[in-house]
Amino acid sequence: MVKTTVGVIRERHPGEKRVAITPEVAARLIAKDIAVIVETNAGVASRHADEDYVAIGARVSPVGEVVEDSDILCCVNPCEPPGVRPGQILIGTFEPLYRTELMNSLQSSEATVLSLDLLPRQLSRAQSMDVLSSQANVSGYKAALVAANAYGRYLPMLTTAAGTSQPATVLVLGTGVAGLAAIGTARRLGAVVTAYDVRPEAKDEVESLGARFLELASVIAGTGEGGYARQLNQAERDAQQSELAEAIGRFDIVITTAKVPGRKPPVLVTETAIAGMRAGSVVVDMAAGELGGNVEGAKPDATVETHNGVTVIGAGNLASEMAPSASAAYARNISAVLNHLITDSGVTVDVDDEITSALLVTHQGRAVNSATADASPPTSQPGDTDGT
Amino acid sequence: MVKTTVGVIRERHPGEKRVAITPEVAARLIAKDIAVIVETNAGVASRHADEDYVAIGARVSPVGEVVEDSDILCCVNPCEPPGVRPGQILIGTFEPLYRTELMNSLQSSEATVLSLDLLPRQLSRAQSMDVLSSQANVSGYKAALVAANAYGRYLPMLTTAAGTSQPATVLVLGTGVAGLAAIGTARRLGAVVTAYDVRPEAKDEVESLGARFLELASVIAGTGEGGYARQLNQAERDAQQSELAEAIGRFDIVITTAKVPGRKPPVLVTETAIAGMRAGSVVVDMAAGELGGNVEGAKPDATVETHNGVTVIGAGNLASEMAPSASAAYARNISAVLNHLITDSGVTVDVDDEITSALLVTHQGRAVNSATADASPPTSQPGDTDGT
Repeated sequence: MVKTTVGVIRERHPGEKRVAITPEVAARLIAKDIAVIVETNAGVASRHADEDYVAIGARVSPVGEVVEDSDILCCVNPCEPPGVRPGQILIGTFEPLYRTELMNSLQSSEATVLSLDLLPRQLSRAQSMDVLSSQANVSGYKAALVAANAYGRYLPMLTTAAGTSQPATVLVLGTGVAGLAAIGTARRLGAVVTAYDVRPEAKDEVESLGARFLELASVIAGTGEGGYARQLNQAERDAQQSELAEAIGRFDIVITTAKVPGRKPPVLVTETAIAGMRAGSVVVDMAAGELGGNVEGAKPDATVETHNGVTVIGAGNLASEMAPSASAAYARNISAVLNHLITDSGVTVDVDDEITSALLVTHQGRAVNSATADASPPTSQPGDTDGT
Repeated sequence: MVKTTVGVIRERHPGEKRVAITPEVAARLIAKDIAVIVETNAGVASRHADEDYVAIGARVSPVGEVVEDSDILCCVNPCEPPGVRPGQILIGTFEPLYRTELMNSLQSSEATVLSLDLLPRQLSRAQSMDVLSSQANVSGYKAALVAANAYGRYLPMLTTAAGTSQPATVLVLGTGVAGLAAIGTARRLGAVVTAYDVRPEAKDEVESLGARFLELASVIAGTGEGGYARQLNQAERDAQQSELAEAIGRFDIVITTAKVPGRKPPVLVTETAIAGMRAGSVVVDMAAGELGGNVEGAKPDATVETHNGVTVIGAGNLASEMAPSASAAYARNISAVLNHLITDSGVTVDVDDEITSALLVTHQGRAVNSATADASPPTSQPGDTDGT
């Protein structure tokens, strides 16, 4: 029996509050005779003190020791811990299609990089490892809360001595995992919810959650490979935008979810659409980030009020705002990946294994993933953050 | 038929976003042949532009003209518009028991002041005028949203591929209108809710909303006059605090609602209680204001994080944060008061009328209200913001 050591790197991306492994999951790993070493303060922003890790038997150390003593290093965002050595395994969400410079650097250090955003999500045995789904689920829940909190009126219909308030109307664009979570939460709060996706099979899912499906006459079925929404052509996009713009003005709250890691998000809510909204309306753009967003005028991690009184919230990393729940889910996903890799004889990187080979980006100094090698990532349209 | 003119004063209290009369209610008044004149920008912060008032036939003017041309002036917070003349009627929430200086000044100007916080709330025909209830209802809803948004974990129990999340546990202290609204909203979001009030009849109300009632062994029945919670004596308060402190540590979110206008709120959540809470817990103090609050360490209109990672939110004026809904309800309440005062022969201040006489603070240069004259206001304990 070879003892494996798993290291947890503190996230360094500004504003990032998550941690790759929580004390709960660390305890489970330790119970399986895996050693866990956590970088000092790695869990603080997600409400896990160093003492919480020590209490369940993990070691807490500066980053240099974590790298030196670990067989596997775990992170949430793309990371490049100093001193990574050949053969050392890095597990995280690296967005390798987008972060070519980082990938080249890790490749030349001969580290083995497993990127969880490359997971073959359609495999049922991979579902417990699906960080895109788990983080999208947290984000979608949070998006509905952020919208409700920014909106100055009740979401539910309420009847009191002072009269009856109409329920708020919410439009969710894109019905991947994030969109469905936003629909569910807005419904919990009593809003009347409508949703839209180019994939026609989304209609049933939307209706099963008690929401209405918005039908656009101008858009024909847009399901692409692997269940992702396919990329629309320019004429389809223009027609969709103009039809959407008109519809959007009828809603109090709009939540957009059309993001795929490493790709420029499609514009779904134009300035014209926002100009047609009522004062006090709220738009939450879950795709707002360095590559752009779904909403014209949205700023990443900032709230803007337009001249006509519409609040536009750039919210591309809501999972971080729910760091305790998001980290709990991420850590369970990581734990499933570790269980897949670690056996009694130690860590095995089986390049013939369906899941492992899909996750592998660099191994033994070479780029090994077909997805990254042929540089044709899945594309996305209206809101399918995360496939289904 | 004498035509009455009602004026709407822009709120001047820092951070206040509400407006006493919305365009919706102004339109209804105008339909009854009452003229409405609104101060410039009075509605902007609650999403009603000057043009919205003009569009339904109201006049928009600077404050001087509003005062000069109105028979009745309406405001939300205590107001003293420049140029108020003898016999002119002011309607608002003046907290006369607390604002003695302002009351003396208005008395010497011989204005007639009707303060809606003095409403005889037990009268069923006064319920449509009950601004304390309508604003407490908005505030309680918002308190639950603010708490959920500040909390880093899911409120509902959710089962996903990454595992099952436990529902959040919420404790609501005080089950007046605000407390009941907070309970309802936290329940909508899927939290497991417990509530506490010294009034034993609160138990049924709480349980009818699907929440648990927290029983404290140390507190005996505390219902006082008029259905308000009675003030506890020092020994009762100490016993209650120590028992509460122990209970509070078991909850993820605590919302306190023990506020009565013009009175120092009781401390319900001590520093000891907060020290016993887990990192990531959230406390919302709906009583936090210039007179103190229910939570030790809470700052009015500010969020504080304690050394043990508890987020303490001072939220004494949440109605303003929901200005569109809060103003809509307030305006309907005001409208009911106006209907009570205005007849075909103009405005009548009937000092023998049960409602009018209760609301009257100063009239014809004299203090006329028994509640203010004998200076013994209703008192409150655990959370009864607003009676029932």
